[in-house]
Amino acid sequence: MEWGAEAERRLTEIAACSETTDGVTRLPFTPEHAAANDLIGRWMEQAGLSVHLDAAGTLVGRKAGPEGAPTLLIGSHQDSVRNGGRYDGIMGVVLACLALERLQAEGVALPFGTEVLAFADEEGVRFPTALMGPRALAGTLDPEIFDLTDRAGNRLGAALEAFGGDAEAALTLARDPTRTLGFLEVHIEQGPVLEEENLALGVVTGICGIERNRVRFTGETGHAGTVPMQGRRDALVAASRFVARVHDAACAQPDLRATVGTLEVHPDVVNAIPESVDLTLEIRAPDDADRARFADTARAEGEGLAAAAGLTFEMDRTYAQPAVPCDAPLRGALAKAVTARSGSARLLPSGATHDTSAMADLCPVAMLFLRCRDGASHSPREFASAADMGLAVEVLAEALTGLSRHPV
Amino acid sequence: MEWGAEAERRLTEIAACSETTDGVTRLPFTPEHAAANDLIGRWMEQAGLSVHLDAAGTLVGRKAGPEGAPTLLIGSHQDSVRNGGRYDGIMGVVLACLALERLQAEGVALPFGTEVLAFADEEGVRFPTALMGPRALAGTLDPEIFDLTDRAGNRLGAALEAFGGDAEAALTLARDPTRTLGFLEVHIEQGPVLEEENLALGVVTGICGIERNRVRFTGETGHAGTVPMQGRRDALVAASRFVARVHDAACAQPDLRATVGTLEVHPDVVNAIPESVDLTLEIRAPDDADRARFADTARAEGEGLAAAAGLTFEMDRTYAQPAVPCDAPLRGALAKAVTARSGSARLLPSGATHDTSAMADLCPVAMLFLRCRDGASHSPREFASAADMGLAVEVLAEALTGLSRHPV
Repeated sequence: MEWGAEAERRLTEIAACSETTDGVTRLPFTPEHAAANDLIGRWMEQAGLSVHLDAAGTLVGRKAGPEGAPTLLIGSHQDSVRNGGRYDGIMGVVLACLALERLQAEGVALPFGTEVLAFADEEGVRFPTALMGPRALAGTLDPEIFDLTDRAGNRLGAALEAFGGDAEAALTLARDPTRTLGFLEVHIEQGPVLEEENLALGVVTGICGIERNRVRFTGETGHAGTVPMQGRRDALVAASRFVARVHDAACAQPDLRATVGTLEVHPDVVNAIPESVDLTLEIRAPDDADRARFADTARAEGEGLAAAAGLTFEMDRTYAQPAVPCDAPLRGALAKAVTARSGSARLLPSGATHDTSAMADLCPVAMLFLRCRDGASHSPREFASAADMGLAVEVLAEALTGLSRHPV
Repeated sequence: MEWGAEAERRLTEIAACSETTDGVTRLPFTPEHAAANDLIGRWMEQAGLSVHLDAAGTLVGRKAGPEGAPTLLIGSHQDSVRNGGRYDGIMGVVLACLALERLQAEGVALPFGTEVLAFADEEGVRFPTALMGPRALAGTLDPEIFDLTDRAGNRLGAALEAFGGDAEAALTLARDPTRTLGFLEVHIEQGPVLEEENLALGVVTGICGIERNRVRFTGETGHAGTVPMQGRRDALVAASRFVARVHDAACAQPDLRATVGTLEVHPDVVNAIPESVDLTLEIRAPDDADRARFADTARAEGEGLAAAAGLTFEMDRTYAQPAVPCDAPLRGALAKAVTARSGSARLLPSGATHDTSAMADLCPVAMLFLRCRDGASHSPREFASAADMGLAVEVLAEALTGLSRHPV
């Protein structure tokens, strides 16, 4: 079989399971999700897997290993953002099925059980939560999420149960870590690195930790005509210096990302000196200590700028999520298979969160990234080539074979 | 009479002609305006003036001069912003009445006619236009403004006529420049300069020209986690450098003011690189050539920053109003009276627009500024002291006397 072409065919077919026709909109526990699961279930069966929907709404395709053998999990999510692309998430499910189908076709029997997991909800678009599927497996599911509602007022618990899941039973899905070899996820990079370096594949070193900070500079407003420049306590001028310095500092630090994504000026009037500015500073780094040091640097910059201009400065961390390092042996198996094809394997961090982030609470994890066009993601412009997907199927199949020779 | 104490008493009394009790809210052609005009008319009569409402809604108190003599105009506006202060505008009307009352009490007969003008609308809060009164006198009134409506849908023309004015006749109010000696306005500074220098009064050199520019930086958005720092085309980073550089450049230029008062980020999401930033750059300067040169500098900075970061930059002037220099002899008469009391006279530009700006199209103009507390204006915190107001009455009266000895 032409594995890349088949991946492309399947992704085209399943893209039709969407509320919208331009981009893909497939939200959890909807008719589109059910239609997608019908297709995925068929592809799982074609790979020799037996299929069931677990209580948390994850479609599971399982092939048992030898009596008493542990299980290796592979997968990603089926859902999309609103008007998203054809690759984010679902490609990882399709390529996992194809890799197992390929091993089956080659008559390879793995010395461990394998499961392909198609998670219901990674994007968190319909309900204000996400990662329910992997959290259920890791035993980290918060029972309160079942009371969350979507825009139409539907409870998550009710939507899950109408779909064939079971909120109460979802809380009992935790797998035994000693029986779980690891979790592998294949995903588009969602960034420009591989494309810029002309590489089809990359092996993820870890998933960056994330923190978000609310920053406020407060000065004094005044009439833009009557208050001379000297002695102004302009909050926007100080905030602007902060944005530029934080950016420059982040550029000097490998693999760290710092972004001021939102900024609001008060009173926001053409002829009034800005009194206060609220902005958000998001910091991501594969190393939590690097991230903490950078936050300290940003805080010191902000305090210094504020003091110099007679302003006040506040910086409060509103969210933090630690970094998830990928497992060395699992990552090594992927890197070895990539190197066999390309001479070397590009290692890179994942700046975005994935199902893998939650699976890391259960077992060792690793990720394979595919180059995507223009780094586009969460958009109908998302694209990965059939050739790259074919290569990923090969690499995934070979990594599984490799793991069977050198058990983790 | 204690002129300063009387000014304070009158300003307290007229502050009650307000929609609100905390700050003053007195909009044109409202019951509050009518109640204020009743008081002002009484004060005009007390100064020996004969009172009428002109067709543009300006309350005019006139004292004829000798047969055939020209007229000197003095005044300001009666209206306030919403929840504004007790001094902005109305103080200039009150002090003009008191200066003429004082001259009358002293038996001084001026060799020219005098008029106190209480304009209906300088703030432009109720209708999206302003300065109707002075424009009518200058012959620069745009007849289309009468079709503008307030929030409740009332036409300006109808509101004016219900108040006793006449839209059609307002277009025929233009005064003869050869019969008009000039226009004097007393106003709070609305800035911190006089207070910082411990001075009661200042003489205005001119009213700054103003221009407003719409500035847009356009880059490329992307995921704040997946796109490395290098190669980002972050519109907010470039815009921030622009804000800081424009501020620093303005600080280096005496009497020029440059303010970025509004700034909007798109898409304004915590984990998305800003794709574009829209901001406004307002520039004010007493010299139009300085202002134009500064705008060129800002444009060059923006273009340079955008080019360096792979962005596009647009800067469009959306509004411009030329500077209005004050008349040397009128200004000199005020400065001489101030100097007689304080040893010297502080000269300073007006960064804000005033009725004087529109009166300059008719005749020579000059302004006297009073120190105000904390530079506060358009706020209930607005304050000028009785002592300073008393001094202003003296100065204004003496300047009028001075002008009668050295006709302009």
